[in-house]
Amino acid sequence: MTFSSAEIEAALRRVDVLRHATAAEVRALARLGLPRAVEEDGFFFFQDDPAEQVFILLQGRVKLCQITPEGQQVNLRTIAPYQVFGAVGAVRPDATYPACAQALEESVALVIPSADFQRILSANPALMFDLMTMMTDYIREMQDRYREMVTEQVEQRIARVVVRLAGQLGRRTPAGIELIFSRQDLAEMAGTTLYTVSRVLSGWEKRGLVLTGRERLVITQPHALMQVAEGSVPT
Amino acid sequence: MTFSSAEIEAALRRVDVLRHATAAEVRALARLGLPRAVEEDGFFFFQDDPAEQVFILLQGRVKLCQITPEGQQVNLRTIAPYQVFGAVGAVRPDATYPACAQALEESVALVIPSADFQRILSANPALMFDLMTMMTDYIREMQDRYREMVTEQVEQRIARVVVRLAGQLGRRTPAGIELIFSRQDLAEMAGTTLYTVSRVLSGWEKRGLVLTGRERLVITQPHALMQVAEGSVPT
Repeated sequence: MTFSSAEIEAALRRVDVLRHATAAEVRALARLGLPRAVEEDGFFFFQDDPAEQVFILLQGRVKLCQITPEGQQVNLRTIAPYQVFGAVGAVRPDATYPACAQALEESVALVIPSADFQRILSANPALMFDLMTMMTDYIREMQDRYREMVTEQVEQRIARVVVRLAGQLGRRTPAGIELIFSRQDLAEMAGTTLYTVSRVLSGWEKRGLVLTGRERLVITQPHALMQVAEGSVPT
Repeated sequence: MTFSSAEIEAALRRVDVLRHATAAEVRALARLGLPRAVEEDGFFFFQDDPAEQVFILLQGRVKLCQITPEGQQVNLRTIAPYQVFGAVGAVRPDATYPACAQALEESVALVIPSADFQRILSANPALMFDLMTMMTDYIREMQDRYREMVTEQVEQRIARVVVRLAGQLGRRTPAGIELIFSRQDLAEMAGTTLYTVSRVLSGWEKRGLVLTGRERLVITQPHALMQVAEGSVPT
């Protein structure tokens, strides 16, 4: 799992936040970055670590998480390849990471010193606007999830998380949209317990909406599941 | 409640996001902006309106809110004077506001066309970094509130909201830290009901932590309330 300079440059060209980067800027980032591999369940960084590096996922899946003082883990967001994470250090000096970043499977990220990333951003306003667009997307997602948490019933919340993940990470298969995801992750993302997730999923399976497996979910009736997510009862 | 150009410029100099703006940039913003007054409970904008304007609060208090399809309102954040809100249109073209902005009391905001705000941002990277810093603060706040919502008991959540508001909006008085805030707003911010907020506040009042009044709360024992917010029982 090594990456050549050419492969790293090709990966950087797929990063949304870098779509207005010049060829010279992409080359500079590829040269400044070092790929780092992390095993499943390992961490790229911990919450409150100094945010000295910016990460671009090259391979795998990473979850951004917070740990409560009592040790309970909350899943804030899942990062897919070609997404930027831990960028706060490029935005403000002396920042710390607001969340931890844990590999959900064996993962590789390009690690770029925050100061270098900041220097390249400063020289190109279009890059900054793209980074701000990423932030406003994230703000909107967090606001939506917060609103759901405040107002919605647990089954609807779980359905929303599944529909959102299907859009972000789902793979189309003959049986339906396949998601690789543990029930524990789903429980954390929906702000509920493993027990409740299992109960809701088996209810959906009985109604023919999904097929469940170990760390795997196939959405066989996406439209019906979207109706659950919208709070209407599927027919 | 009219504002002279000099008063508007003086107000803009107190805006955190504009602390690296040049004198010429502040003058340009003051000239491009128009003050708009909104009565208590009126709206500066609604969720999903085109984000054609950026707002800087000159006077009053404004809440950013979302309305669920069932009509339930969720309070996302309270804006104090000299804070920027509705800035998403300056970040990305064709944006819509992710939330509504409702005046909690008679309020005045300077209204600047998003395209003009964007043009001034583009010319000064320091302004963009300050705007990104504001966004990262907001992301951290939303993440914290989401985590609290998922993991904490309702009394602790209400205490956290009160402590956070005291830091943002509280006025020091001889009796303690005074907050002007309705129980309904508090219920929305803590993601609970008016009934629960009233029950919790009257419990705190009996224990001597606060004095309650109509739309008014005085924190008489800030340290003890912080202990509730941290999940430890005050002694």
